[in-house]
Amino acid sequence: MLEKGLVCTNCGRTYELNQLHYRCESCAEPLEVEAFESGEIIRGNPMTQSMLMRYREFFPFKTLDDSLSLGEGFTPLTASPSLASRAGVSQVYLKNESQNPTWSFKDRGSLSGLQHALKMGITRIGTVSTGNMAPSVAAYGARAKLETIILVNENIPVEKLAPIGIYSPRLIKVAGDYGSMYYESLAIGARQGIYFINSDAPLRVEGSKTIAFEICEQLNFEMPDYVVVPTSAGGNLRGIEKGFREFFRAGLISRRPKIIAAQAAGCAPIVKAFDKGELLVTREEHPHTIAHAIENPLPPSGNQVLRILKAGEGRAVSVTEEAIIDAQARLAEEGFFVQPAAAVGYAGVLKLRDEGFLEASHRVVVILTGGGLKYTAALEEHRLSAETCPLEKLAEWI
Amino acid sequence: MLEKGLVCTNCGRTYELNQLHYRCESCAEPLEVEAFESGEIIRGNPMTQSMLMRYREFFPFKTLDDSLSLGEGFTPLTASPSLASRAGVSQVYLKNESQNPTWSFKDRGSLSGLQHALKMGITRIGTVSTGNMAPSVAAYGARAKLETIILVNENIPVEKLAPIGIYSPRLIKVAGDYGSMYYESLAIGARQGIYFINSDAPLRVEGSKTIAFEICEQLNFEMPDYVVVPTSAGGNLRGIEKGFREFFRAGLISRRPKIIAAQAAGCAPIVKAFDKGELLVTREEHPHTIAHAIENPLPPSGNQVLRILKAGEGRAVSVTEEAIIDAQARLAEEGFFVQPAAAVGYAGVLKLRDEGFLEASHRVVVILTGGGLKYTAALEEHRLSAETCPLEKLAEWI
Repeated sequence: MLEKGLVCTNCGRTYELNQLHYRCESCAEPLEVEAFESGEIIRGNPMTQSMLMRYREFFPFKTLDDSLSLGEGFTPLTASPSLASRAGVSQVYLKNESQNPTWSFKDRGSLSGLQHALKMGITRIGTVSTGNMAPSVAAYGARAKLETIILVNENIPVEKLAPIGIYSPRLIKVAGDYGSMYYESLAIGARQGIYFINSDAPLRVEGSKTIAFEICEQLNFEMPDYVVVPTSAGGNLRGIEKGFREFFRAGLISRRPKIIAAQAAGCAPIVKAFDKGELLVTREEHPHTIAHAIENPLPPSGNQVLRILKAGEGRAVSVTEEAIIDAQARLAEEGFFVQPAAAVGYAGVLKLRDEGFLEASHRVVVILTGGGLKYTAALEEHRLSAETCPLEKLAEWI
Repeated sequence: MLEKGLVCTNCGRTYELNQLHYRCESCAEPLEVEAFESGEIIRGNPMTQSMLMRYREFFPFKTLDDSLSLGEGFTPLTASPSLASRAGVSQVYLKNESQNPTWSFKDRGSLSGLQHALKMGITRIGTVSTGNMAPSVAAYGARAKLETIILVNENIPVEKLAPIGIYSPRLIKVAGDYGSMYYESLAIGARQGIYFINSDAPLRVEGSKTIAFEICEQLNFEMPDYVVVPTSAGGNLRGIEKGFREFFRAGLISRRPKIIAAQAAGCAPIVKAFDKGELLVTREEHPHTIAHAIENPLPPSGNQVLRILKAGEGRAVSVTEEAIIDAQARLAEEGFFVQPAAAVGYAGVLKLRDEGFLEASHRVVVILTGGGLKYTAALEEHRLSAETCPLEKLAEWI
């Protein structure tokens, strides 16, 4: 039995949670699980409790299969006075999602999507991905011993393919663009009983809520002013906003932080629409950025992100390739080696402070979405140097 | 002020903790911090408490600088019934150290070594490494804004160099073998006031203790029969053994698990000595294994590891290249993509069960020391396959 239903984020039409629904049949906008209005944190020891168990009162499952956890979530939130000082804000907190089982935030939503699939008796799962989602869904599919179908673009380089293939999913290279693959996979999944835990699937969004829940706990429920989210399809930002919304309604926090969507200027459909005051994204015709993991030319939850930003006095910001690479270096100088897509958030902070949008008094949380080892080719953009010295000369050399 | 002293693991000679000592001036064997005989866990929420704070009663610091944490430790311990079933043992628990800030167990010891350096007023740190330790020390040095000297072999490939260089340490390629660099760095450090947090530095070993502490908590203090540790220099195994020893003496656990040192057959100096019943390691003359991160031909703590195994009814086991690659695949099929060195532990379990050393009733913890993205060249050893399909044929293809 599943509690709660699904509701369209745009028109409010409702759907059963017990069936495979992703988007509204009336307006084609994404669905979400009805928001929780109450609930408590089940305060156990995070070392012996899964993320789903701790926040189970905010998940629409009466029972949970904890045995499928790979130890996702409960990632650190680390204050960085030096990055705050550089940006000229009161504090910067880094939520390091690279400490998840497959080294990105995707693991949270993969697990909650997997739970949903199993509740419905579905034994084939899949995803469409070029980035962090493919290895994540492949890992959880492996853990659950389900047939797992990963659709990738036919041009994917072998260095990205092998770290997916190691989990032994059914890996299919498809001749077709990401957007078409996304919609085609949902159609096929609905007909053939395959649960595609794609980027903004309602239960993936539920997984991302836990990022917000953890931030609340880690800041002792004293809310920051802004939370900056590198944004691609929009599912993660939606989840984070929903998490704050639910804790607010449940009385666990007294105000909600504002959300900032950060994108690479080379693929910034949400920012472009936001800047024009529009509520509909337009396809980015020539996407090109080193932040591959968020290079999504037509984000399926783009319109809902725009609605969220408008309703919550949020903001969208795009940053140049140079700014992304610089932010990657600044984060590494603080001990955090992240993938370029994950550096977009701090680059956004620097830009918004320069513009005067962020103020000296602001406390800002930046989501570090994935680890640097996921895309080492980006290291070629940095001028890294090494000295060379014979062993016998080392003492004087140092 | 520092509490406790250092004691030689072999002859018992004591030293001040307040100076840079690594090895005994009498017998040249490694030193360790005097074992704690009592202490309690400071039970806070691991999401808002650092590893050092939780176990501070087992660290020789009167005060701790928590601000240098990158969120290390508190890694998941995950039961794997399917890997247990494959091995024919009662349960296999995976301690996934790839969920640390630089994706290996090294971060625990880098932080505690850094604390020690700062207590002594030392502002230059360093390490000698070809594997996981270099990025870890570089990250913590960056976090603390210290000059950080990383010595690597001159032949290190650029793909391993860049993920160290991104943290902006002083990176020096040295013409000389690892063993010589290890001893030379300690000599230089002692003379020039540089704290080399090398593989078995006493305070690095203290950091590794927390792996044992967490296992105790995560298993609700019901001890497993064996803990299997992929073993290189020996520092991590020493720390894990010391952790169990201290919790046992403090009355927190009623018995200690036995320790198994796992090495690659291509570089197994500890296993070779163990099998001959010797207590001194001999240099491996032609080391060669895909498990690069544990390819250490003359482990500086090798003799102490042999003493630990003898005293605690432990065991040493070596596994073939084929077995390592197979174990890497089996772990990935369970959702864990680890580097080859980290797969050596489970390969060891399979071998020891085949030999009848491990029994059907045994509960075994396996330490997954580092993440798979650290050495993606190993993926070439796996037969990974992908299908190709045009978008319009996808429905029938799936």
